Amino acid sequence: MPLTVGELSESALLKRIFPRLPSAANTLVGPGDDAAVVAAPDGRTVISIDTLVQDKDFRLTRPNGFVTTGYDVGWKSAAQNLSDINAMGGEATAMVVSLTLPPETPVDWVESLADGLAAACRYLGAEGCGVVGGDLGGGTELVVTAAVTGSLEGRAPVLRSGAKPGDVVALAGTVGRAAAGLALLEAVEDLESLGDEELALIGIQCRPEPPLAAGPAAAEAGASAMLDVSDGLVRDAGRIAEASGVQIDLDPDALRGFAAPLEQAARQLDADPLDWVLGGGEDHGLLATFDPTGTLPNGFTAIGSVVAGTPHVTLGLQAPASIGWDHFAH
Amino acid sequence: MPLTVGELSESALLKRIFPRLPSAANTLVGPGDDAAVVAAPDGRTVISIDTLVQDKDFRLTRPNGFVTTGYDVGWKSAAQNLSDINAMGGEATAMVVSLTLPPETPVDWVESLADGLAAACRYLGAEGCGVVGGDLGGGTELVVTAAVTGSLEGRAPVLRSGAKPGDVVALAGTVGRAAAGLALLEAVEDLESLGDEELALIGIQCRPEPPLAAGPAAAEAGASAMLDVSDGLVRDAGRIAEASGVQIDLDPDALRGFAAPLEQAARQLDADPLDWVLGGGEDHGLLATFDPTGTLPNGFTAIGSVVAGTPHVTLGLQAPASIGWDHFAH
Repeated sequence: MPLTVGELSESALLKRIFPRLPSAANTLVGPGDDAAVVAAPDGRTVISIDTLVQDKDFRLTRPNGFVTTGYDVGWKSAAQNLSDINAMGGEATAMVVSLTLPPETPVDWVESLADGLAAACRYLGAEGCGVVGGDLGGGTELVVTAAVTGSLEGRAPVLRSGAKPGDVVALAGTVGRAAAGLALLEAVEDLESLGDEELALIGIQCRPEPPLAAGPAAAEAGASAMLDVSDGLVRDAGRIAEASGVQIDLDPDALRGFAAPLEQAARQLDADPLDWVLGGGEDHGLLATFDPTGTLPNGFTAIGSVVAGTPHVTLGLQAPASIGWDHFAH
Repeated sequence: MPLTVGELSESALLKRIFPRLPSAANTLVGPGDDAAVVAAPDGRTVISIDTLVQDKDFRLTRPNGFVTTGYDVGWKSAAQNLSDINAMGGEATAMVVSLTLPPETPVDWVESLADGLAAACRYLGAEGCGVVGGDLGGGTELVVTAAVTGSLEGRAPVLRSGAKPGDVVALAGTVGRAAAGLALLEAVEDLESLGDEELALIGIQCRPEPPLAAGPAAAEAGASAMLDVSDGLVRDAGRIAEASGVQIDLDPDALRGFAAPLEQAARQLDADPLDWVLGGGEDHGLLATFDPTGTLPNGFTAIGSVVAGTPHVTLGLQAPASIGWDHFAH
């Protein structure tokens, strides 16, 4: 039997977690006190919070035998939080993490979660982000909440509300891959039957890769509006449309490039890859609008345009079929 | 039947919550974007995170009919987070809050929680603290996580590690009241039988009142070490002892003043009020150490002294019977 968290004191568990967490130059006072102290070099701190709940945001095991590791959950928690800072045009400076753990949780699952948090910060390029503190407690289901701080390095934050008619709509990172990966996880009975391309999609579902360099680059380039696509392209574009009081028209031709890597999985599941591109979240790509006279920053692809009109989203000026995810409606 | 969160979309629920949350001068970008932006006037941000879990940290209803309201849970979440900033000598600047809500949760329970968050910030004196963002999701049990940021206003943070032999050990706020209130809630069958003094103890258990002016005052006065008493006086004093490499001796005579308001409840439950004072957390009083040549700041009472010795806590130089709370061991 593996050692479980119910067999350890809180302090003994913390002693196993702390050494696995990254420190960073921004960490002025790290874990171990009532609170941490983090650098905020330009006199402002960006802050966000996000939660993953067992059986809602991840499944420990699936009927086909697929296992979500602690490493996956730690990575995903870090990635989605880092993405929120990215979407403001900031660079992450620190994370604090609260874990609600059923007593039967294996200690090595929690250690693996800490490793996943650390690996995501390193691999995604958030070297400035230390994990500086946290909270541990018991519960009946696993809940992982991280709050993340960031620095704008003197820049203005990029809000959702600045898109103007005539702006180019552009996307950085990927879209639809995590949704395709989830569809595969839910439909495929024999994991051995999956090819490399399909396993890569499942990999993005488990360990998303938000394009962390793109947020600050977009801010530098004067992006007029930005957010990260976490609930689906149409739904999230609708948020920019709503906040900015504009219509956003997506170009179906431009989206084909994002659908192409999903085609093999779509054939296997008899699905339309464009549905994943339009409705799938969780890749945490960046959607931004830019003045059309400038050059798009590295990593961004034009996928549409901002049009004067009542706030809504169109696809080639038609109503799109797919919409995104609602956390309570499903 | 009351309206439940399962009947509302996430955005509809957010529209009901946001107007209830406090804004503040430190809020540069509030709720509604991917992340908030908060002032960090001295170029540093203090940050902490704390979670409350249903049936662990609060019970919605007890066998005797006692109901924990959303207001109570919101207040407690704010209070314990604000206390962590206080314990570093900081003033809170912002909170972000993540709610995991079973679909059957009444919407008015969540609205009441938002009111409790706002009321605690106002009543406890954290006028500079806005609630600037959050996350909503579903789950099988209620989980409330808040992360809080704070400003040190140019001061050094007060850590646990600076206590020196000869220092005075002092306490601000109350200790043992929340524990006595909890003992009453667990033991009393007829709530109608309770007197005003006992109801006040239950009130502190439900809506603790950390002394938020005392943390910055202690930092100004040069406190050598500080933390908030959340897990019990002996256990938390032990943390200062451990981090500072000193012995802390508590003075039983000085603690009698803190035990006095608990005596009526103790008689009713056949308990020793000193056990609550030594072992009870959740009042979120402040425990700090000061150079003996100075004057204690307003609100602090001397309760012991720092002694050279192996890191441990004594009561009149004897081993104390009570120890504090461990989140997994109970």
